[in-house]
Amino acid sequence: MKYSNAPIGVFDSGVGGLTVAREIIRQLPQESVVYFGDTARVPYGSKSKDTIIRYSRQIVHFLQTKNVKAIVIACNTASAFALEAVEAELDIPVIGVVKPGAKTAIETTKNKRIGIIGTEGTIKSELYTKYIRGIDPEIEVVGKACPLFCPLVEEGMLNDPVTDEIASRYLKDLKEENIDSLILGCTHYPLLRSTVGKIMGEGVNLVNPAYETAVSLGKLLEEKGICAEAEHQSEYSFYVSDAEEKFKAFANSIMPFHIELIEQINIEEY
Amino acid sequence: MKYSNAPIGVFDSGVGGLTVAREIIRQLPQESVVYFGDTARVPYGSKSKDTIIRYSRQIVHFLQTKNVKAIVIACNTASAFALEAVEAELDIPVIGVVKPGAKTAIETTKNKRIGIIGTEGTIKSELYTKYIRGIDPEIEVVGKACPLFCPLVEEGMLNDPVTDEIASRYLKDLKEENIDSLILGCTHYPLLRSTVGKIMGEGVNLVNPAYETAVSLGKLLEEKGICAEAEHQSEYSFYVSDAEEKFKAFANSIMPFHIELIEQINIEEY
Repeated sequence: MKYSNAPIGVFDSGVGGLTVAREIIRQLPQESVVYFGDTARVPYGSKSKDTIIRYSRQIVHFLQTKNVKAIVIACNTASAFALEAVEAELDIPVIGVVKPGAKTAIETTKNKRIGIIGTEGTIKSELYTKYIRGIDPEIEVVGKACPLFCPLVEEGMLNDPVTDEIASRYLKDLKEENIDSLILGCTHYPLLRSTVGKIMGEGVNLVNPAYETAVSLGKLLEEKGICAEAEHQSEYSFYVSDAEEKFKAFANSIMPFHIELIEQINIEEY
Repeated sequence: MKYSNAPIGVFDSGVGGLTVAREIIRQLPQESVVYFGDTARVPYGSKSKDTIIRYSRQIVHFLQTKNVKAIVIACNTASAFALEAVEAELDIPVIGVVKPGAKTAIETTKNKRIGIIGTEGTIKSELYTKYIRGIDPEIEVVGKACPLFCPLVEEGMLNDPVTDEIASRYLKDLKEENIDSLILGCTHYPLLRSTVGKIMGEGVNLVNPAYETAVSLGKLLEEKGICAEAEHQSEYSFYVSDAEEKFKAFANSIMPFHIELIEQINIEEY
């Protein structure tokens, strides 16, 4: 049995990917994690494919300076746009959040009708749709962009009648589509799980790609023989491209431990 | 009398500064304008001073390649954070949107109580407050950040009960402050003028820095002897740092003429 105690690199456009890092830390407590949040250039959701690929390349170069053994693209837009480009350049495994979430939705749908909500970039790219229908062409996939969800989450309006009203509008068409699985296709959205669940009703299974990604990562590390040793004392480091105060406040509101040290770097140099 | 037909450089974090460009074009029809919207790195409102200065310097270097005779920082956050740093490096005049708006509010307030709404960055910087109280220390300035206003405008929700509800919450405390002038301290906010006006009531004068900035620019060009000739056929060019489709749609919804040609550049190279 081979082992590696090197850290896992996790990156996102900002704070959202912390929901993925949180699942990795919970499910794989022996693994060290280096997290990078591109807070100087957030959000990615409304930016073009070329820009997202350029940004992702810079981040991967930075993470390589930390000797990561695997990279998790904890951002739906970057997973949709940049996974292939990044994968082609690296000799370590890379996973995004799109495939694990899509796979679970395919496994759980009974009526072969899946919904997907996310940012404009994620929905427009149709990568979830293409991936799902590549595996099972009989499945219908219905997408809906929800651009106000991220700013509402970052305003802390998780349980609020305004958020309920906006969610009702965004989800109105989806409710009429008779879907039985709905992918929460943006890393902020698991924090709106109860709002979305209330509107969609009990008949719709909500798929959280953050959870599924951590499961897939665990399997991947085993396959490649690069898990950390069971008694390995894991370490967590956090880097951002802009001032760390806001990141720190959000991180400490959702992570299971207190984060004090967050380092700011100039990502454009990588 | 001296003249210059060189263009005026105008920049913003994205589409918002078009409300300023629109005023310049309306008030100074003989002047050519080169507009740059940093759509790859939008928004600036939640980013730090150092990052905003770095971004502004890159943009100024780009505008200099277009031989601009003056620069307008059509972004409140960049005006608040980067005006001095940029000014110190240039031998052409630079104006921001903060001072013209603040001056008008000082001139119009009768009870010496001014309100200011804007992004987190603009409000936290307190630059409006410092500037106003530097001129008249008896004036009280009350600021309030409205982080959801920009995403609501970009969703086109200009006249909407949800926008009314969010505006009511944001403006609740300000209403109790007995202000008689309110500065719309973000370039998107003039598009919410009627919503804000309805809530604040007729007793509160709304100050639009876009309008005031164009007035100040006209005076500045005259002082420096660098106005365009009266019969000069002005030209308008638009550049962005990300894909131009979304910019084009928004631009064409608010500008008085149709914009077809928008060029994308890599701003990180400047």
